[in-house]
Amino acid sequence: MGKKKRTAIEPTRMENYPEWYQQVVRAAELAETSAVRGCMVIKPWGYALWENIQAGLDGMFKATGHVNAYFPLFIPKSYLEKEAEHVEGFAKECAVVTHHRLEEGPDGGLVPAGELEEPLVVRPTSETIIGATYAKWVQSYRDLPILINQWANVVRWEMRTRLFLRTAEFLWQEGHTVHETEAEALEETRKMLDVYETFAEEFMAMPVLVGEKTEAERFPGAVSTLCIEAMMQDGKALQAGTSHFLGQNFARASEIQYQSREGRNEYAWTTSWGVSTRLIGGMIMTHADDDGMVMPPRLAPQHVVLLPIIRDEGDREAILAYADEIAVALREGSVFERSIEVVVDDRDIKPGEKGWSWVKKGIPIRAEIGGRELAEQTVFMARRDTGEKLAVSREDFVGGMSERLEAMQAGLLARARDFRAAHSREIDSMDAFRAFFTETREEEPQVQGGFVWSHWCGGAACEAAIGDELAVTIRCIPFDREASGPGACIQCGAASVGRVVFAKSY
Amino acid sequence: MGKKKRTAIEPTRMENYPEWYQQVVRAAELAETSAVRGCMVIKPWGYALWENIQAGLDGMFKATGHVNAYFPLFIPKSYLEKEAEHVEGFAKECAVVTHHRLEEGPDGGLVPAGELEEPLVVRPTSETIIGATYAKWVQSYRDLPILINQWANVVRWEMRTRLFLRTAEFLWQEGHTVHETEAEALEETRKMLDVYETFAEEFMAMPVLVGEKTEAERFPGAVSTLCIEAMMQDGKALQAGTSHFLGQNFARASEIQYQSREGRNEYAWTTSWGVSTRLIGGMIMTHADDDGMVMPPRLAPQHVVLLPIIRDEGDREAILAYADEIAVALREGSVFERSIEVVVDDRDIKPGEKGWSWVKKGIPIRAEIGGRELAEQTVFMARRDTGEKLAVSREDFVGGMSERLEAMQAGLLARARDFRAAHSREIDSMDAFRAFFTETREEEPQVQGGFVWSHWCGGAACEAAIGDELAVTIRCIPFDREASGPGACIQCGAASVGRVVFAKSY
Repeated sequence: MGKKKRTAIEPTRMENYPEWYQQVVRAAELAETSAVRGCMVIKPWGYALWENIQAGLDGMFKATGHVNAYFPLFIPKSYLEKEAEHVEGFAKECAVVTHHRLEEGPDGGLVPAGELEEPLVVRPTSETIIGATYAKWVQSYRDLPILINQWANVVRWEMRTRLFLRTAEFLWQEGHTVHETEAEALEETRKMLDVYETFAEEFMAMPVLVGEKTEAERFPGAVSTLCIEAMMQDGKALQAGTSHFLGQNFARASEIQYQSREGRNEYAWTTSWGVSTRLIGGMIMTHADDDGMVMPPRLAPQHVVLLPIIRDEGDREAILAYADEIAVALREGSVFERSIEVVVDDRDIKPGEKGWSWVKKGIPIRAEIGGRELAEQTVFMARRDTGEKLAVSREDFVGGMSERLEAMQAGLLARARDFRAAHSREIDSMDAFRAFFTETREEEPQVQGGFVWSHWCGGAACEAAIGDELAVTIRCIPFDREASGPGACIQCGAASVGRVVFAKSY
Repeated sequence: MGKKKRTAIEPTRMENYPEWYQQVVRAAELAETSAVRGCMVIKPWGYALWENIQAGLDGMFKATGHVNAYFPLFIPKSYLEKEAEHVEGFAKECAVVTHHRLEEGPDGGLVPAGELEEPLVVRPTSETIIGATYAKWVQSYRDLPILINQWANVVRWEMRTRLFLRTAEFLWQEGHTVHETEAEALEETRKMLDVYETFAEEFMAMPVLVGEKTEAERFPGAVSTLCIEAMMQDGKALQAGTSHFLGQNFARASEIQYQSREGRNEYAWTTSWGVSTRLIGGMIMTHADDDGMVMPPRLAPQHVVLLPIIRDEGDREAILAYADEIAVALREGSVFERSIEVVVDDRDIKPGEKGWSWVKKGIPIRAEIGGRELAEQTVFMARRDTGEKLAVSREDFVGGMSERLEAMQAGLLARARDFRAAHSREIDSMDAFRAFFTETREEEPQVQGGFVWSHWCGGAACEAAIGDELAVTIRCIPFDREASGPGACIQCGAASVGRVVFAKSY
């Protein structure tokens, strides 16, 4: 252990991956647990990241013709019961409101009072409550399509929670659309998956596979669920977004009917699609390292931190003035259609501690500015992605910033793609499949397999058998599955029209 | 009644003011009731207004050094109980979560199951849950100030609800700050009130009075509550925003202590401040008229609607092309640091119906574009605020748009100021006071008094007596109260250091 490099995060990814994740979230000041079981506090640095995610996605939703609205937090129990599979999926883990006040109880403490006639469920997702409203809005084909998104909090009473990845309350967006025809609803379902794919890759620098879920992994009540799946640094898959084609299931449940062009009453076709604060967990496990978070510049809350180093009090004023000048010059630049965002950290704490706090937070660029840099009109710059440190002239530092940040963004995506490629396999025998998911890799013990492209007969029994034995599931059926050619199911040997993607998952 | 002008909203303000309000909300497609008691659906046009309100306020919060974060939706019952006045204020009307799943009951339906050890309250406001987190974050004076805002939904189980003005669930922002000294906390309380005042006047075109609440009207648990109060078109006051100085009350309740510069353990000083979707109700009752909503351009979801009028199908293509050209030209302009936002409404419905739908929604500028306008290179423009309609050249229409919208914004504020001035009085006798609040005004029967500046001894008994007799309350004690000079309490005749503002209120 004597040779071990000192890292800001302990344990390292290799030593204990799940614990490393928790420590990164803590050290980067992204979020923390609260006194309320499973509910997190999203701290300012984490929330600023979420605000940038929201802004990026919201722009893409609006560019594809969607508008935002807001629907009630509470769902009457009877609404949830309208769609049988749906209630089956959510009844087991929902927060139930039963009373509407607290009053003094026999022992002096407050007890629930004012029992509701019908219990209300805190929305785990809003298909049923939004559907009830849409049923009122839709009369004729002229009222269609409805293309609405909602930014909201939702609650699913999960028993085992992990910050960002699985929490009782989380923030998300949920799109809910209504269409005249099946084809339009299918097109919408796919279009929003494309939006998610583009956002994941271009904004989050997180490569994703796209495809359809198997029946076992489908959203409760959906006809089909499309998904984006990303590979984390432990080789496990993270379902990062889903887009559901709901057919006429929810239209029937909520009575969303319209008069067609031919004058007939028809059930409408609906979709829903969502991503959540889980995306932040995905970014951490895609980019963070043993020193903490690494922010892709396009979504980073701040791009650059300037760290004045004052060794001689007599230099203080001149150094701070120099830092401010550089900050002003940087802010005039822009990158990814945002201003370059700069913080000058003049807190009165030890320089080492100060610098490390920004390393852990993952800010893309740090620059120390002291007496020497002032004299030489340079800064001492460090890149968070590569660890590179070097003195650069003030002109190069400022003038090259947009390009540098763009290069970092591209570099992070390329690195993640390389990692995924290195941990993806086509496998055709169950022995090799089993070995891939169970062997310990000496040089990267945190990796539990990766993405395996194998043949599958389409049977739920084979899927379940592999899940039971190895905790490996089918993450998606690629849209171009047949391009991989036919073969034999890895479990039962029956005919398969093409490969699907297996992995362990979050 | 034969002479009555036809209006888009029935009844008119004069005929039935409360019902007029509901009809404006409906006709403007701002919001509607839902199946969940007291919870509203905010429709896309209303939500777009809220997004603009959010953007404006958020920019001002950040410019004054605040950052956003997110805290849990649920508050353990024991947390709410920590501050005696606070729980007293909110226990009577809160949604209580008692179970965490639904399971099949004896009669086949689902019943609440998995009872929680401690009930959770859906946040009516977050002082106690945020305080518990701040207690962990604050160790030393170096950790202060904490300047955090949260955008969130909150629930108060109101028995009588009205869209936007009083709903069980509403959207708001709540700022929660922690300071080292009383003076800093007082300064923050006042600073955020100033932000609200500026926002109300400059963005919403809604003039407000600023001052302090009496003890009877204070936030439960606060040392003092500052407020902005606006006059609605019925002469009643709307409390549109509050900023609370919490002293050390919540710091004691939540144990927010810090080590001072002198090394002593001290309780911190906290503030909280908030505005909500109620602001939309305020905008409606400030600006809307008997034809529906009137949007102040600075917050309007869209600024201009172009209405192609196609009488001859042969002209369709040319007219639509002409409209698109104008839209493109307009969008290149900007107003209030936003692009000019233009919608081309080419829906296939009757022109009259189409035009009225935009009148009711309150879009600032409408312009009809038909064969004649195309031939003459003009548009037929209508202003929502003045009702003025005239043909203008394409150049004037496009080139003058920013200035026109700015003039409308200023005009709406001036009109609201004039209305307030016309319905404000200094009154020094109880007979005149009583008459002012009870007389029926023939020419404006909807007006119930207005703002009355009268003397008050400072006694809760006098305040209560007036409230009991006339349903008139003290809306605020102006900061410059003493400038109005001393006098005698309108109720008891005892000495008063200056006038305070009385009104009926929402």
